[in-house]
Amino acid sequence: MQHGKLRLGMVGGGQGAFIGAVHRIAARLDDRFELVAGALSSDPERARASAAEAGIARSYADWREMARAEAARDDGIDAVAIVTPNHLHAPVATAFLDAGIHVICDKPLAVSLAEGEALAQLARSKGRLFALTHTYSGYPLVRHARELVERGELGEIRVVQVEYAQDWLAEPVEAGGANRQAVWRTDPALAGPAGCLGDIGTHAYQLAAFVTGRRPDALSAELHTFVPGRRIDDHVQAMLRYANGARGMLWASQVASGAENALRLRVYGTKAGLAFDQEAPNELWFTPLGGAAERLTRARVKSPIAAHATRVPAGHPEGYLEAFAQLYKDAALQIDALNAGRAPPPESLLLTTVDDGVDGLRFIDAVLKSSAADGRWVKLAGA
Amino acid sequence: MQHGKLRLGMVGGGQGAFIGAVHRIAARLDDRFELVAGALSSDPERARASAAEAGIARSYADWREMARAEAARDDGIDAVAIVTPNHLHAPVATAFLDAGIHVICDKPLAVSLAEGEALAQLARSKGRLFALTHTYSGYPLVRHARELVERGELGEIRVVQVEYAQDWLAEPVEAGGANRQAVWRTDPALAGPAGCLGDIGTHAYQLAAFVTGRRPDALSAELHTFVPGRRIDDHVQAMLRYANGARGMLWASQVASGAENALRLRVYGTKAGLAFDQEAPNELWFTPLGGAAERLTRARVKSPIAAHATRVPAGHPEGYLEAFAQLYKDAALQIDALNAGRAPPPESLLLTTVDDGVDGLRFIDAVLKSSAADGRWVKLAGA
Amino acid sequence: MQHGKLRLGMVGGGQGAFIGAVHRIAARLDDRFELVAGALSSDPERARASAAEAGIARSYADWREMARAEAARDDGIDAVAIVTPNHLHAPVATAFLDAGIHVICDKPLAVSLAEGEALAQLARSKGRLFALTHTYSGYPLVRHARELVERGELGEIRVVQVEYAQDWLAEPVEAGGANRQAVWRTDPALAGPAGCLGDIGTHAYQLAAFVTGRRPDALSAELHTFVPGRRIDDHVQAMLRYANGARGMLWASQVASGAENALRLRVYGTKAGLAFDQEAPNELWFTPLGGAAERLTRARVKSPIAAHATRVPAGHPEGYLEAFAQLYKDAALQIDALNAGRAPPPESLLLTTVDDGVDGLRFIDAVLKSSAADGRWVKLAGA
Amino acid sequence: MQHGKLRLGMVGGGQGAFIGAVHRIAARLDDRFELVAGALSSDPERARASAAEAGIARSYADWREMARAEAARDDGIDAVAIVTPNHLHAPVATAFLDAGIHVICDKPLAVSLAEGEALAQLARSKGRLFALTHTYSGYPLVRHARELVERGELGEIRVVQVEYAQDWLAEPVEAGGANRQAVWRTDPALAGPAGCLGDIGTHAYQLAAFVTGRRPDALSAELHTFVPGRRIDDHVQAMLRYANGARGMLWASQVASGAENALRLRVYGTKAGLAFDQEAPNELWFTPLGGAAERLTRARVKSPIAAHATRVPAGHPEGYLEAFAQLYKDAALQIDALNAGRAPPPESLLLTTVDDGVDGLRFIDAVLKSSAADGRWVKLAGA
Repeated sequence: MQHGKLRLGMVGGGQGAFIGAVHRIAARLDDRFELVAGALSSDPERARASAAEAGIARSYADWREMARAEAARDDGIDAVAIVTPNHLHAPVATAFLDAGIHVICDKPLAVSLAEGEALAQLARSKGRLFALTHTYSGYPLVRHARELVERGELGEIRVVQVEYAQDWLAEPVEAGGANRQAVWRTDPALAGPAGCLGDIGTHAYQLAAFVTGRRPDALSAELHTFVPGRRIDDHVQAMLRYANGARGMLWASQVASGAENALRLRVYGTKAGLAFDQEAPNELWFTPLGGAAERLTRARVKSPIAAHATRVPAGHPEGYLEAFAQLYKDAALQIDALNAGRAPPPESLLLTTVDDGVDGLRFIDAVLKSSAADGRWVKLAGA
Repeated sequence: MQHGKLRLGMVGGGQGAFIGAVHRIAARLDDRFELVAGALSSDPERARASAAEAGIARSYADWREMARAEAARDDGIDAVAIVTPNHLHAPVATAFLDAGIHVICDKPLAVSLAEGEALAQLARSKGRLFALTHTYSGYPLVRHARELVERGELGEIRVVQVEYAQDWLAEPVEAGGANRQAVWRTDPALAGPAGCLGDIGTHAYQLAAFVTGRRPDALSAELHTFVPGRRIDDHVQAMLRYANGARGMLWASQVASGAENALRLRVYGTKAGLAFDQEAPNELWFTPLGGAAERLTRARVKSPIAAHATRVPAGHPEGYLEAFAQLYKDAALQIDALNAGRAPPPESLLLTTVDDGVDGLRFIDAVLKSSAADGRWVKLAGA
Repeated sequence: MQHGKLRLGMVGGGQGAFIGAVHRIAARLDDRFELVAGALSSDPERARASAAEAGIARSYADWREMARAEAARDDGIDAVAIVTPNHLHAPVATAFLDAGIHVICDKPLAVSLAEGEALAQLARSKGRLFALTHTYSGYPLVRHARELVERGELGEIRVVQVEYAQDWLAEPVEAGGANRQAVWRTDPALAGPAGCLGDIGTHAYQLAAFVTGRRPDALSAELHTFVPGRRIDDHVQAMLRYANGARGMLWASQVASGAENALRLRVYGTKAGLAFDQEAPNELWFTPLGGAAERLTRARVKSPIAAHATRVPAGHPEGYLEAFAQLYKDAALQIDALNAGRAPPPESLLLTTVDDGVDGLRFIDAVLKSSAADGRWVKLAGA
Repeated sequence: MQHGKLRLGMVGGGQGAFIGAVHRIAARLDDRFELVAGALSSDPERARASAAEAGIARSYADWREMARAEAARDDGIDAVAIVTPNHLHAPVATAFLDAGIHVICDKPLAVSLAEGEALAQLARSKGRLFALTHTYSGYPLVRHARELVERGELGEIRVVQVEYAQDWLAEPVEAGGANRQAVWRTDPALAGPAGCLGDIGTHAYQLAAFVTGRRPDALSAELHTFVPGRRIDDHVQAMLRYANGARGMLWASQVASGAENALRLRVYGTKAGLAFDQEAPNELWFTPLGGAAERLTRARVKSPIAAHATRVPAGHPEGYLEAFAQLYKDAALQIDALNAGRAPPPESLLLTTVDDGVDGLRFIDAVLKSSAADGRWVKLAGA
């Protein structure tokens, strides 16, 4: 193995999965990880074939076994990427944390707030990295947006509008079982009680929280299932109240015909407004009150924070994989520091954590409660 | 006076008003009206000076006197445009309807639902035209959008997202009194109990209703006032439920820093989605489920409905004044028909009416009630 | 007639014409003209019917007669709008100038440079207004762009890129004669020797000259006719050289499938670049070297020059008719001043003139010569 | 080394270079190459340090030595990536071809047409892969655009408009020597006789040729140097003529203030037009004559050609690195086939080749000749 690379394992992400391949590219892109072990499927044959296809040296049929075995090896993995359906996030993470292995876990953190809180407590006690892959916070201009808010360029935040629209579940594509993504994401036993809410609603929530540095105190929400026969929500709408008096709305839908992956955030403060659209991630719009809208780009903002999260010069577009790679890059920087007993470099600290995951579960929990109570305003736990 | 022109009067719209001048251009643009009489201000001197400046032959200091006098003349006005602050809409309209004069009235229709319902009843009993100037329904592509929904091109409607963001009230510009627009629009005695809600929230509501042909059954809403000292709401957010199970959100704000006049509608059905942005009114986006987004333009849609509402060839942009003029053009077509005892031409029937005004007041009423009840779901009257 | 309105006549623009109706709306929009006389067609019956339809009091079968008769009346027209095919621009303008009547003439000024120069000399000698309707210079943001260049915000101009693409002549629509627009615009006897070049190439040329305040010294050009059987060019491409060393390109096409009316200008200087797109005229893009692109809007630029050319508040889009109306408004301001022996108000002086028309003919002349000489660099007359 | 990976070497791309790092990420992204050897700099110390930083096992101080040594090893490199300044492309490529090693070379192919032709002949005689990294042809939607043209969806091609604007050389940034990129790219001894022309003009030329499947017969061009003291062109403009009568324009500039990396292509045929903008590579615009513009996206075009060049689902943006990686992926597919004596998979054949490089040199050659002859039309060699 080359100098400076960390050894990575993966749980989940076998053939037919989408997010496993994405994690593998992301881990590789900045050359800080080498994928050496995996339990890519609960089906042993699929696990073996998937590992071979991905060029993974050590394939395990069982993730518990993998945690044990890797912990015992001198050249065992430094970190594990967990890319299973949601219901396994917490058990798998627990096993690897217990084995002293750093964790990079897909969102949502867990299938209940209690489960997530227990996991967070464990992670803190183990002193291992626990990164949660909220991809969109890896975009350089999302990080710059956060910086603009933090520096006060928007003034006092008044209004937050965030939305995440897709259409891939506009029809009952889970029926029949061929679309494996659709099957598990609409099955409460695998996805947890939140469908669209957990799958993309949490991304929207996290993006707003990440950029504004604020979490709502309370929300009034409604879940809905449009597609007949679906066992889980495919649509969520919510109104938000913040401690400082700010107001907001959050909308996520997987039946918005024509929408591909339309995650959009707008924030309005007393001094300026900003807007970001995930489908055009190479620009960020900033408009001072009474002034012209400015199209900010990575290269032009001259921001060390954005520069840390980019690889190519002005006008060379970056995309989703680069944002994802940024999470792995930051994870590597932090793992290096933890392994060496150093403080992690400040620029790596925007990586989303297990606490962000707990916060997302508080959001899910409050939406579920509010929706069940016909939209009653519900306080977020801990708020 | 030239052949074929109707005689128009105007109440309100004196110097310093914005909407009066807009009405005058709109009435003139298609050459169907000549403005001959006016009571442009409650201040007699301002009324006289404003009328002279606008080239209006007969100036009145009082609108009651104007209604009486014009009704008595052989060459009296055919129609009156009411462009006063909201609290006078109903009284002035009542006076002119009683005088047998057609009415073209700014929105919102009245300052209470009861007042609006009485006015609608009066209008029906008089057999006069009562046009409400919801400008945005005059855009050819808004009308084409409605047609697309009606023809079933979107399938069953599932999701409605409508918003109207401005920033001109982000600061307390009403203080001091110099900004006359801001003064009356934030004064409950003149604007009625709904600030942002009545001023632009109703436009958003009406646009969604116009295009979808559907009104929500119930809503959960919250009004908010951001600017200290302001006596009326400057922000409204609401969730909507429709009879067919559709869901929606409505947001209107006058403190959204950076927003000029950002009225936007998105509608998603089982077969397709569409999007319209008032600030780019020469395009309408239509995306079939699984297909490419199409940028529809007036000339390319080859729609008689759009053609009726346009004046220039492909690629020559039209704007707000043309949309406004369309309302006057349709009003002229209907008045001609009413005067002649004919049925109005079908293409003129998209003009918004006193019933649309009542519907807007039902929306306002429900929002006020829901907001007062901490966002409780409130049924719309008549729903 | 109302106080303050000027009496307008019109030559050309009968039924079936596009530009006549546009001129009539434009003249009416700002309420400074009343259209009272016309010779709308060379066909007497069509002339009469067209005048009646347009509500024109005095219809003439012949424009020579109209010039004589109107000059002789106490209430004769103040100005004439010439909206005929190109070959009549100069003869008609000459007749009205000789009769002491102000002229508002469509572009191109004439069908040859010599004809145009004679006309310019006549106009100067008569002391009458001669306005040329290069519509696009009526947009507030085009005027603001010019102001930005003039103020030095772009630094020294280096590169000019201008283009005007349409597709309405992509097929031989002139065949058969039903499309009257296409028939005369592709007939050298009516349109002059320049087809696409004269029809839209001159607009592109003029827009670049208007904004930059610079005319090229020399050009290398090529005309082309794509549609079989067409008797005139439908495509022009040119390279430009300016006195200060700047370079440029100009492209105009009427066979660019998919293009509606895509007139676009980009100017790059040592300090900044700007971009304007006629199909989105409510925004102007300005990008300082090394900085963020700024989306300038009418309301936000806080420019008296833009304010003079707008009628509605921020975010209420204006379009082609408003730009056209601006030319009439400026013409009225200048005619008032000429009639009163006053200097015209400075803000009215951006109106394009007969000299701009001569300049456009120099451009046409140079393109024709260069194209005939296989693209040899040709100096513009007077350069 | 893992199963299935090819061994890659690199010449050039040491510390301070931009394109070397890009090649390394691109080679890694799809996991088909392992970078094991390099001569990253002509400065031995820099070569060593750069190799260590990049995790390259075998560092050479000299590329001739590297070619010899690697050819002699059992585990020697399969392919070499050449990322030096232009003047070394041909000598280095020659050395590695002579050693029987596949070549992946940056553009332009060489610093003269003669040099390029000799290299192409050598490559053909050796039966090794010679890939030229015209990155932009790796975008899935560029490939889909080519497919649309090939399938006849545009009809007969009439007009080609291509441009590439940047502003990073708007000022004399090469002065002083700190900006290493600027230094070599403006030094004729290193870059060859073509500055902007060779650096980005060739990209524009190649993109147009790639998509349309047509090369111009002849061109009329002008080079210009705007920045005082610069020893090479920083601006090129050209008019194009095609064999089928099509016309075109090409513009490239490195002094276009405000432009980042604005490579844009528009193609108009008798049936439709299309447009692509490198800065928004996740969409392709297609407009049938008389129809609505369609925004095509990777996922929605359902094209095997686009699918082969993409890695993530609908709405997850891809960028420049992914396009670059595609070239490496296709190279790997072809090298595998060559090594196995199989025909390469058809989907890999869009990779740009040494012949494309020669074609680009013919373009450069013709521009240099035409510009030197004051824009005389010059036939492209071989046309």
